[in-house]
Amino acid sequence: MTLTDTLQTDGPAEQITTLGSRLRAALDGPYAAERAAARAAFPAENLLRDPELSVGESREWVLDRLRELQDSGFGSAGVPDGKDSVSDPLTAVVTFETLAHGDLSVTIKSGVQFGLFGGAVMNLGTAWHHETFLPDITALRLLGAFAMTELGHGSDVASLETTITYIPETDEFEVDSPTPGATKAYLGNAATHGTMAAVFGQLIVDGERHGVHTILVPIRTDDGADATGVITGDHGHKGGLLGVDNGTLRFDHVRVPRRMLLDRYGGVTEDGVYVSEIENPNRRFFTMLGTLVRGRVCIAAGSGIAARRALSIAVRHGLRRRQFPAPGRQDGVLLLDYATHQRRLLPRVARAYALGFAQNELTGRLVHIQGGGEHTEDDQRELELRAAGLKAMTSWFANDAVQEAREACGGAGYMSENRIVGIREDVDIFATFEGDNTVLMQLVAKGMLSGYAEAWKALDRAGVVQATTRAVGEAFIERTGATVLFERLAETARRRPEETALVDRGWHALMFEERERHTLEALARRARQAGREDGDRFEAINRLGGHMQFAARAHVERQVLAAFVEALDAIEDPETRDVMERVCSLYALGSIHGDRAWFMEHHRMSAGRAKALGEQIDALCRELRPHALPLVEGLGVPAEWLRAAILEG
Amino acid sequence: MTLTDTLQTDGPAEQITTLGSRLRAALDGPYAAERAAARAAFPAENLLRDPELSVGESREWVLDRLRELQDSGFGSAGVPDGKDSVSDPLTAVVTFETLAHGDLSVTIKSGVQFGLFGGAVMNLGTAWHHETFLPDITALRLLGAFAMTELGHGSDVASLETTITYIPETDEFEVDSPTPGATKAYLGNAATHGTMAAVFGQLIVDGERHGVHTILVPIRTDDGADATGVITGDHGHKGGLLGVDNGTLRFDHVRVPRRMLLDRYGGVTEDGVYVSEIENPNRRFFTMLGTLVRGRVCIAAGSGIAARRALSIAVRHGLRRRQFPAPGRQDGVLLLDYATHQRRLLPRVARAYALGFAQNELTGRLVHIQGGGEHTEDDQRELELRAAGLKAMTSWFANDAVQEAREACGGAGYMSENRIVGIREDVDIFATFEGDNTVLMQLVAKGMLSGYAEAWKALDRAGVVQATTRAVGEAFIERTGATVLFERLAETARRRPEETALVDRGWHALMFEERERHTLEALARRARQAGREDGDRFEAINRLGGHMQFAARAHVERQVLAAFVEALDAIEDPETRDVMERVCSLYALGSIHGDRAWFMEHHRMSAGRAKALGEQIDALCRELRPHALPLVEGLGVPAEWLRAAILEG
Repeated sequence: MTLTDTLQTDGPAEQITTLGSRLRAALDGPYAAERAAARAAFPAENLLRDPELSVGESREWVLDRLRELQDSGFGSAGVPDGKDSVSDPLTAVVTFETLAHGDLSVTIKSGVQFGLFGGAVMNLGTAWHHETFLPDITALRLLGAFAMTELGHGSDVASLETTITYIPETDEFEVDSPTPGATKAYLGNAATHGTMAAVFGQLIVDGERHGVHTILVPIRTDDGADATGVITGDHGHKGGLLGVDNGTLRFDHVRVPRRMLLDRYGGVTEDGVYVSEIENPNRRFFTMLGTLVRGRVCIAAGSGIAARRALSIAVRHGLRRRQFPAPGRQDGVLLLDYATHQRRLLPRVARAYALGFAQNELTGRLVHIQGGGEHTEDDQRELELRAAGLKAMTSWFANDAVQEAREACGGAGYMSENRIVGIREDVDIFATFEGDNTVLMQLVAKGMLSGYAEAWKALDRAGVVQATTRAVGEAFIERTGATVLFERLAETARRRPEETALVDRGWHALMFEERERHTLEALARRARQAGREDGDRFEAINRLGGHMQFAARAHVERQVLAAFVEALDAIEDPETRDVMERVCSLYALGSIHGDRAWFMEHHRMSAGRAKALGEQIDALCRELRPHALPLVEGLGVPAEWLRAAILEG
Repeated sequence: MTLTDTLQTDGPAEQITTLGSRLRAALDGPYAAERAAARAAFPAENLLRDPELSVGESREWVLDRLRELQDSGFGSAGVPDGKDSVSDPLTAVVTFETLAHGDLSVTIKSGVQFGLFGGAVMNLGTAWHHETFLPDITALRLLGAFAMTELGHGSDVASLETTITYIPETDEFEVDSPTPGATKAYLGNAATHGTMAAVFGQLIVDGERHGVHTILVPIRTDDGADATGVITGDHGHKGGLLGVDNGTLRFDHVRVPRRMLLDRYGGVTEDGVYVSEIENPNRRFFTMLGTLVRGRVCIAAGSGIAARRALSIAVRHGLRRRQFPAPGRQDGVLLLDYATHQRRLLPRVARAYALGFAQNELTGRLVHIQGGGEHTEDDQRELELRAAGLKAMTSWFANDAVQEAREACGGAGYMSENRIVGIREDVDIFATFEGDNTVLMQLVAKGMLSGYAEAWKALDRAGVVQATTRAVGEAFIERTGATVLFERLAETARRRPEETALVDRGWHALMFEERERHTLEALARRARQAGREDGDRFEAINRLGGHMQFAARAHVERQVLAAFVEALDAIEDPETRDVMERVCSLYALGSIHGDRAWFMEHHRMSAGRAKALGEQIDALCRELRPHALPLVEGLGVPAEWLRAAILEG
């Protein structure tokens, strides 16, 4: 640990231990070069917003910062700026991640502008839209809202009430909010800065409904007044993300020219006839929504970064702060030398690594599919399910980890100058936007059931997870190297699971696999039974809610461990590998320990073995304690960017 | 539920179901009359602060509100305003609880001024102090800080570095902060409004140290400038409680007259000789700290109210909001009809009730002891331990419940106009101030060991929980009606625990008792062994950290269930009793379910029975679902006070 590397950043060069640098390279994984380059180029001067700024000041600060980032190449990076340029999903995701090291309002506003609004134009529009709008969108001359969510229908996109009606007489569309519940809500860029919106609504042509489509609607005039027939609203103060101008939109029979419809997957001809390449309206709906998967991938990534920042602050503080003198420690014990303190922070550091490896894997799928790689519809579906699951798990983890970091820093943690509470306030809503986590986990569970036709249909008919996942006919199969390696590992422990060491990777793999498999099979059985029962179809399936959440979690946890195992395989340096093996064990045992009741209930683990888990976790914490600094360095947040007063001086 | 009662409040009369009114009376318990009177008299017009106010504006708003409350009799209620008036602990606690229904900055600033600063003068001072300062303190003419915590010593009061040195030449004390770590930190009233502080420091007389004492020090002149030798600092923006002016204080050899020492338990005579009625410095220290127990009782109470407010908003929202159409529910399913949604909210409502009953019990002890009732030193000690445990458990619960309520309200939950995020920001620090929760739970665990002399001493020598709990020689015995009733209940299930119904109260009692007893005995054994080992004494005990936390939790949970069981006994109305029995089962099973791994590991429960727990909890949620509205009414927060936009219209 005396050896140090010097990494170049835009600010002062970063001093980092050799081990920290290697752990970071391992966690950055296949994108180490891109991430290191992004860190080095990121303009960190105005990294964080003054927490005392008012809502109005915060919004202006964020917009200014976005323009500044745009000038540094950190704005619309990866988003095409015209009809012939191409999308670069890797750059887009890495840019989002890098932004998440700074003010999260900037990150989210950037995501709204380039990812959601720009993404809708790019993915759902055609050449004219690209040519006409993308240059202004990427240059921040045209700010736009992504108007999907309605007050009455948060998670239920298929039930949107907004109508987009074709008016043959004038060759226009009329966009209308027929009820108060149809009001578009929580939209970034809607309260002040946006002058246009990509509005999702039910397309009606000649009296016939064609399902949800998207249309561009000007919402403000150049002088900031509401456009005719548009009523904008302002959500005002929020729990966080004060710099994002979230607002509402209502449409009172607003007319726009026909070509404003984003018609890549369905449009209206000059003759007023609806045409679409995709005949099945359900499939069309999911194809359109599917193009928006990048948003969830980015929110998962941003959640991970938020957790890493807070954990970095708390662990570094724990290495400086002393409390209560003890024998041999007359100046007081370092906080991180308390067993309880280690147990609060180090397993969460381990989980941050684990989720990071899964994030790399997810990003790889996105980059492959949206970067033009060959893929099937099943690959796209798999990407969507993984994005849903990892977004939910990582954003919940971020909320948990940031709060634990806050408490671990005591009163100092509560002071805004130490930055944790600001992260906490901002990341809270990550559990809800881009898909409510509980709904996303239901979606994952339903996806898991796709190999079980009868069970799947029972769910579908009961209206549970209705219209949030696609119909499929074939089995749910994953074909990845990670899975193969994982199954091979699990096999090594299957014969005598109780005799393997607690840190045996094969045993971890076996436990993760058994948890997922058994839960899934039981769920399929219960869903099938429920579907056959007479009586209240909704209620029968409704009762499986908790089971579905658990199954989805078991599924994602297995994917996370598989990604970790594969990443371990790629580490060559022995010390790095050794430390990372322990980190992996700490993650795996934490997950198993949390569910040890389940393992005992299902006779996968003896009481004696379950009891030993906690001690083993404590032991791993003690073993990793000397590497605490390199471990947080490895999380990839340059110390210089933490900006916590508590760590200075 | 068609019958409604009308309760009188200061605002419009509150409409409430008959069942809700009865549940409320049951939860208010022995203090139903006082609480109802406080609700009726509470001036609710300026209940909540505009979340857009800046730090400076918030502080002024809060001070104005304090003065307004003072005029309505809701300020210093229960605090004596001169040397001859007496303290009324019940009124003080009920006032604090009532204030917690409004802006929590007001509640906390009031607690700082009357409870901590006023409490120090009242409890640690003598006639001259009472006469001179209490009238101005209670009338808000003299605002003061409670300067205990130091930057370098958050939880470790015995190690405070501030010195209070007697100067015989001038018959003065010199107050000094010898190091930067001695800076007093996080003090309410210190940043702007306070003109005096009750400063805790090491008393030194003639070169001899007499331990921690408290002295009054003027910190600001009338025009707001720092007093000579005093350096005030401002913590500025925080994670919440923006209306409380938390700041720092440093003292550079500040001189104050001898009589400013709060000398009830130790002082200096005219001749410069230290005198104290309590010879043992350790006992003196704990006697002084013990008088401050009311603060913890109040923070526990306030945490409970915060949780009730957030749960009230989320449950009421769940009874209005629909999502996703389903068979027989074409307008969408009510959120609270989703099994997952019930499971998120109803067990937390049950826990809110349970902690409320324990709070009543704790308040009863405080009122008895501080209200002049006969009591022993053990009674005082028991009060302190219970206050520590319940403060930790309730404030952690509040953080959890408020966050769950936020997520359960989706995007709307994040909007400040719906109030949950404001509560969340404010209540966060309740887990830290008035004692860091983790440290408090260690204190409880150490208290539990007082019947195990050797184990206790091993902890003491290792510096774990050093100086945060008192030495005792006798066994840890509770003599309450609750305990007797509880043990009788547990006996009914002891012979055939696996054959009793899952909702059998005797089985709950048995499980809670076994969890506590076994954990405590194992802890005592491990601590004794650790004390006998050679080697690093700190490290041997340090490893018991997790075990201590678990033991403390098991202990408090048992106290909570005992209080609930006793409260049930007092309910006469059959319907109210029936609903409350289910609420009690839901609380008890939630606690057992959370630790079912422990019960299986220790052969207190079969795997089959453990598996059945989750289904039973779901069933209880379904049974209580029709009573959801009365249940939140029973939590005692008038609907009119919630002020959540989401519930209006």
